[in-house]
Amino acid sequence: MNDILGDWKRTHYCGRLTAADIGKDVCMMGWVHRRRDHGGLIFIDLRDREGIVQLALDPDRDPEAHSKADKVRSEYVIAIRGQVSPRPEGTVNPKMKTGEVEVEVRELRVLNIAKTPPFMLDEYSDVAENTRLKYRYLDLRRPALQQNLILRHQVTRIAREYLASQDFVEVETPFLTKSTPEGARDYLVPSRVNQGMFYALPQSPQLFKQILMISGFDRYMQIVKCFRDEDLRADRQPEFTQIDCEMSFADREDVMGIMEEMIARIFKETIGAEIALPMARMTYAEALARYGVDNPDLRFDMELVEISDLVRESGFKVFADAVQWGGIVKAMNVKGGASMSRKELDELTEFVKIYGAKGLAWVKVNPDGWQSPITKFFSETELGSINDALKAETGDLLVFVADSFQIANEALGRLRGHLGHKLDLIDKQAYRFVWVTDFPLLEWDGEARRHVAVHHPFTAPMDEDVPLLESDPGKARAKAYDLVLNGSEIGGGSIRIHDSAVQSRMFDLMGIGEEEAATKFGFLLEALQYGAPPHGGIAFGLDRLVMILTGADSIRDVIAFPKTQKATCMMSEAPGPVDEKQLRELSIRSAVRPK
Amino acid sequence: MNDILGDWKRTHYCGRLTAADIGKDVCMMGWVHRRRDHGGLIFIDLRDREGIVQLALDPDRDPEAHSKADKVRSEYVIAIRGQVSPRPEGTVNPKMKTGEVEVEVRELRVLNIAKTPPFMLDEYSDVAENTRLKYRYLDLRRPALQQNLILRHQVTRIAREYLASQDFVEVETPFLTKSTPEGARDYLVPSRVNQGMFYALPQSPQLFKQILMISGFDRYMQIVKCFRDEDLRADRQPEFTQIDCEMSFADREDVMGIMEEMIARIFKETIGAEIALPMARMTYAEALARYGVDNPDLRFDMELVEISDLVRESGFKVFADAVQWGGIVKAMNVKGGASMSRKELDELTEFVKIYGAKGLAWVKVNPDGWQSPITKFFSETELGSINDALKAETGDLLVFVADSFQIANEALGRLRGHLGHKLDLIDKQAYRFVWVTDFPLLEWDGEARRHVAVHHPFTAPMDEDVPLLESDPGKARAKAYDLVLNGSEIGGGSIRIHDSAVQSRMFDLMGIGEEEAATKFGFLLEALQYGAPPHGGIAFGLDRLVMILTGADSIRDVIAFPKTQKATCMMSEAPGPVDEKQLRELSIRSAVRPK
Repeated sequence: MNDILGDWKRTHYCGRLTAADIGKDVCMMGWVHRRRDHGGLIFIDLRDREGIVQLALDPDRDPEAHSKADKVRSEYVIAIRGQVSPRPEGTVNPKMKTGEVEVEVRELRVLNIAKTPPFMLDEYSDVAENTRLKYRYLDLRRPALQQNLILRHQVTRIAREYLASQDFVEVETPFLTKSTPEGARDYLVPSRVNQGMFYALPQSPQLFKQILMISGFDRYMQIVKCFRDEDLRADRQPEFTQIDCEMSFADREDVMGIMEEMIARIFKETIGAEIALPMARMTYAEALARYGVDNPDLRFDMELVEISDLVRESGFKVFADAVQWGGIVKAMNVKGGASMSRKELDELTEFVKIYGAKGLAWVKVNPDGWQSPITKFFSETELGSINDALKAETGDLLVFVADSFQIANEALGRLRGHLGHKLDLIDKQAYRFVWVTDFPLLEWDGEARRHVAVHHPFTAPMDEDVPLLESDPGKARAKAYDLVLNGSEIGGGSIRIHDSAVQSRMFDLMGIGEEEAATKFGFLLEALQYGAPPHGGIAFGLDRLVMILTGADSIRDVIAFPKTQKATCMMSEAPGPVDEKQLRELSIRSAVRPK
Repeated sequence: MNDILGDWKRTHYCGRLTAADIGKDVCMMGWVHRRRDHGGLIFIDLRDREGIVQLALDPDRDPEAHSKADKVRSEYVIAIRGQVSPRPEGTVNPKMKTGEVEVEVRELRVLNIAKTPPFMLDEYSDVAENTRLKYRYLDLRRPALQQNLILRHQVTRIAREYLASQDFVEVETPFLTKSTPEGARDYLVPSRVNQGMFYALPQSPQLFKQILMISGFDRYMQIVKCFRDEDLRADRQPEFTQIDCEMSFADREDVMGIMEEMIARIFKETIGAEIALPMARMTYAEALARYGVDNPDLRFDMELVEISDLVRESGFKVFADAVQWGGIVKAMNVKGGASMSRKELDELTEFVKIYGAKGLAWVKVNPDGWQSPITKFFSETELGSINDALKAETGDLLVFVADSFQIANEALGRLRGHLGHKLDLIDKQAYRFVWVTDFPLLEWDGEARRHVAVHHPFTAPMDEDVPLLESDPGKARAKAYDLVLNGSEIGGGSIRIHDSAVQSRMFDLMGIGEEEAATKFGFLLEALQYGAPPHGGIAFGLDRLVMILTGADSIRDVIAFPKTQKATCMMSEAPGPVDEKQLRELSIRSAVRPK
């Protein structure tokens, strides 16, 4: 066929050429990364996805190729034929994969020209993010971004192949689903055929994967886009990707066991990190007691200690009152923190206030005892027992929050995380996983005056806590589990309710009436009556997982075409205005005219 | 942990038990497919995804298990422990994978009860499709449907692994994109943050995959949902899945070569069919000439023959006029068709009228010559030359359509397909692939009075036809290719335009002004200026491919949760009404109240 490339067939990727190829005739294609003239010779760094190789053009040897090379500019697309040769002595570049070789170019073709890019593609160049997003096609030429996306692909391959080896079947669930407003806001899609009706884009395939278990698919997986129309934080996107799994005839340990093996393989095969299995397990109650949060960062110690019992009778009213009113006093020993300045201590106090704490008490442990505004309120015995509880040593800083259980834990738990970074306590090379289990099933929503599901309404209570659904629902624990890595939740799931009576009782407790439940989840309730197996599952956030694996700072660095915090695509300018005709066909009207 | 299954761990899938397992202690879980009592013994067919195994319960040996088994009903979920034993002589069932064995049950647990299903799950039971769709969770228990979806998973695994081995990277493209009304109707998603604006769900990732090539990703693939809000035909769904690919530095043969290898592997590894490579190639012009259509079914011969030159001067005015007015006369020899009744011939005439033909002339070749109403209009020489052209023999039926090029080809081409089925000419075991190439680039839209792209506006013209864009655009051929299997197009693609000047010229020809082009495709036009490599790609329709591989009659039998022709999900009742509050947040109003 008569085509552009004709008999020019690429033989190698630029970045894969090594000394083993010396002497070979090669044909390569790519982008002009840099061109420089050096004593009449022209050198071109030719770039493709796999890396960069040096081309050498000699005006005496190949005058035609040399004269064409003289006219190429940065980002031109060229094809070359030539021979691989060793670089002349002294010019070997050990930092480059291809640094031992260069290609003596015999023929050169310009496949396409290029305007001067609006910014340099050097990896570390400092360009406003909006410019990078507008010219995403250029930004994506940066090796760092490309490598992130290639690693992302590796993650999905490893996950898919491992799960397939464990008999999981990938089944596609629908994108045009029904709106069940519960939790986050749905993205809606007006129906043209059924006017006045709307589809919703799925927030997760939860109902469908449970249906697949009831259908007998036994083990389901899917790597799938999900959607939430929420106001975006820095690390959120309107569409995000989950590694979604569900298993029948499985208890919690079955799910966790398979999934930690998958995660370990991903870490091993992408970045070479060895993850010891089984991963640690910790109950929610223990996580809160020791770390104040349900996503503890185990890369460093500095655990929280509750000292309520030690200060219940103390003369320090702030502590004693907190305990008496049903709150707690929680403390933390910041090893070697006694050297902090007053200004630094004030900053810590401001920090805990973000989380609702009224203040932060502190004590510097000096050689001659406590140095603190609160020393005077405590007896020697109390001082001693607090020191013991916190294993205080000279040079330490002790910090205290007295407040409700929730505020004291969160404020001090967050402060722990903050200090971990600030004091450089964190081993950046470490990957510390922990399964957090036994979450509460329900929490009381004071405003709506009803219970809401902590995980979601289909999560099973722990077997021994089922009676609590009648007597004290808030105390019931769930068969839920989160996988936490270095203080980030990377996945979460649960064993589901497979008994339709228990499911109905859950809806009751959440103030969801029979009619409402039937409208929203009718098919699931009905399906549960036809022989539902015990089942459970989990979903991992792929975006965050890839962020951790690549060390990316922004979620936008692990997604090819991300949206801004205003949910727009700077490159394609989505969302955009639409024709009046399109709206007319849907019988909808927008009250706002686009600018 | 205290969990439902406790120390009951499944050891085998029901359907995987074989004689090699005899003597083993096993634990299995599944659904009661059938239960029967036989002289005091109870036999249960236990079913899971992998198949069915027979359980035997002896009241003397295990009275407790037996008495529990006495109470189970169809579709109950049970777990059993027992020992695998050979079936007693004479009761081996060679039709079942597990037919040599049964499990002597020692312990039985009912994990869940089940109401009586609204229909039997036997594979061939005849249930109204709407009932099946409403109770999709039960319908999906049918082994045939499960096997279809498992095969679908195999297809995606094979495609992904093969393409990865060829250096394709899977990259996720966005679902919330910009509406570019061109071709089919978009599904719209109102934006809350940018009120008055809309996203559109992608009809294909076309623009994004080209951007990825311009970004240097070199080879992209994705198995991805696409969306079209069209009135549904029997074999269409509002959301459908593509195996989507794009390659840089590739000509047509590069794309076709890699893709046919992928398809051959899929056929070999799923259904064991050996596909000879390379697949046949045929130009669009040749396909029309020989088969009247651009998706020829090559499982049988019966080619079309143009006889315009032979009848140009004939006395049969219908033929002569057609040729004179610029049309053609096309004929086909239906071997052995002379035995057709007048009624059958009338049916054929009605058939071609569907495609706009005014009539169908026919000739029965009898031992004593033509038997036909039109015989008298032709000279002996003409009869002879037509017979020769059609290789007519005694017993054959010759059929003729005289009309415009387009109608004559389509009518007779479709009639060929119709007769292939009707006369049972088709080898049902055959898989006949053909690449159809060299499609026209543009076609004239008489109504809109402009050219429209036959493939899409980014398809490159053939190099030697570029001058035709100026002189006679309708004559220009495209670097487009479709893969046709047994008369169905299963994939199609093209080499794309990588030259921004040619791209602009294409928009010109299509009457898309500079401003409109900039609004709709501005970022692609701009990206083309920064060093776009020559590139091309293809997309395969996964749903149709799986239909062919499984022999499914309906697209709904290869999709877990399909929609009806009214684009509704009978199970979840999507689309549905939404809260007023949801619309208020989007500032949109629906003119239609849902019933």
